[in-house]
Amino acid sequence: MKKTSLQAFEIQKYVKGERQFINDLLSVEEPLGIKIRHQNELHDISVTMRTPGNDDCLSLGFLFTEGIIQDFQDTVKIEENTEDSNVTIELRSELNWQKDKLQRNFYTTSSCGVCGKASIDAVKLACPIVVPQKKWTVASSILLGLPQKMREVQESFEFSGGIHASALFSLDGLLLEIKEDVGRHNALDKLIGSQLIKRRIPLFEHILILSGRGSFELIQKAAMSGIRFVACVGAPSSLAVELAEEYDITLVGFLKDARYNVYTGFDRVDFNQ
Amino acid sequence: MKKTSLQAFEIQKYVKGERQFINDLLSVEEPLGIKIRHQNELHDISVTMRTPGNDDCLSLGFLFTEGIIQDFQDTVKIEENTEDSNVTIELRSELNWQKDKLQRNFYTTSSCGVCGKASIDAVKLACPIVVPQKKWTVASSILLGLPQKMREVQESFEFSGGIHASALFSLDGLLLEIKEDVGRHNALDKLIGSQLIKRRIPLFEHILILSGRGSFELIQKAAMSGIRFVACVGAPSSLAVELAEEYDITLVGFLKDARYNVYTGFDRVDFNQ
Repeated sequence: MKKTSLQAFEIQKYVKGERQFINDLLSVEEPLGIKIRHQNELHDISVTMRTPGNDDCLSLGFLFTEGIIQDFQDTVKIEENTEDSNVTIELRSELNWQKDKLQRNFYTTSSCGVCGKASIDAVKLACPIVVPQKKWTVASSILLGLPQKMREVQESFEFSGGIHASALFSLDGLLLEIKEDVGRHNALDKLIGSQLIKRRIPLFEHILILSGRGSFELIQKAAMSGIRFVACVGAPSSLAVELAEEYDITLVGFLKDARYNVYTGFDRVDFNQ
Repeated sequence: MKKTSLQAFEIQKYVKGERQFINDLLSVEEPLGIKIRHQNELHDISVTMRTPGNDDCLSLGFLFTEGIIQDFQDTVKIEENTEDSNVTIELRSELNWQKDKLQRNFYTTSSCGVCGKASIDAVKLACPIVVPQKKWTVASSILLGLPQKMREVQESFEFSGGIHASALFSLDGLLLEIKEDVGRHNALDKLIGSQLIKRRIPLFEHILILSGRGSFELIQKAAMSGIRFVACVGAPSSLAVELAEEYDITLVGFLKDARYNVYTGFDRVDFNQ
């Protein structure tokens, strides 16, 4: 594992009533562009959020599992451009490949205008958000109780054990809405869509709890909805933390078993209550 | 939560040396098409793998977090077509929306020709695979030890706690390759790409261990690579089980703490060894 797969952040760790200031290592999440060169033409194929390292394997595996190449010998050259975070794979010119056919073969997962630009600046342009001035805090005691409140209503979780949930709480810990899905981004889209119907957007003074890890994509969706407090039961990624910082979102991770880490927006967490 | 979000499967459960035959409920995973009607034109926007239920909220939330609509009032009508698993959202005709602009705003995650067709048949057409006749089994004792072997080499997991891994083992439990990523599909693409470079594809006689849940997408990638034995530490989805059944892949789930469930391909697991 290369060093670039981990990134250090100064965080506040809360364990059983005690607060510590520590340096924490997070998994790096960054966009990688995958391009194909075929018969002297360059084609953008995909942008995926990935942890840097083995980008050549990632691109080859992607082309193979998409059925674009059947064999390593279908490729002529692999160019890794680490500066722009993209990989160009040259296919042998005899290979019968048409870009039109490819387009149908992708699911899309949402993002926010980052494609092809490995920068948060691109997101900022695409998601203009008014930062509220009003200050408020969430008490530690309330925060610690939210995952359990969420689990209690997650009927299907108890049966299947394999589903993600997004839950919206008021600042004093009242559960307002919960949605589930096998896809974490879908669970959050369902939650935000339900609030859109109820005309509750923007969700400035709310707490969002995510049952799994906190990825860039989820923080982007929270930012779009005006959410300023996100807590995930799992770990956040590096880019999630950077985006949260940029949008003045409080980001909490590893919220479970009487502990949690605060990565950004420390002033919204009241450790003493 | 609607009933359709869970589906029952007959499985074999192994707990501390004892095998049970039970009915297990799994989270349903199915493709949903999201379409837009705008100025009397119909546009395919996205196909996402989701758990059925709240499809209207999901589609609205998706359009909102992509910046396509700013408000519920930007929509005129929501049509849910449950038979074809798609939702069409009609935008008010005054809304300034151009499809060209949208295309840049999506990351792609890979799949296999299912888009727009909610069926495994479509995958089968896109991924022709020769089913090997040779029979072999994996001993329970070997299977139970694999997650620990995987964790021992997952250096970065120990630091960040937020990363997925895919590991390839020989049938007698030797670790051949391991790759990590914040995205589970990327970790598997990296693994498969590395084997492509080493000319080891197809991977008929190997065991694939996945650190998280087993989704349709991962089983599709395994199928493309000829893998016949997949074990995940988390839960599989309904569609993952169905695809594994179709491809004669042995699918094991919840592999941890001296227990596991077998969902398909029971004859490749030797419970007595």
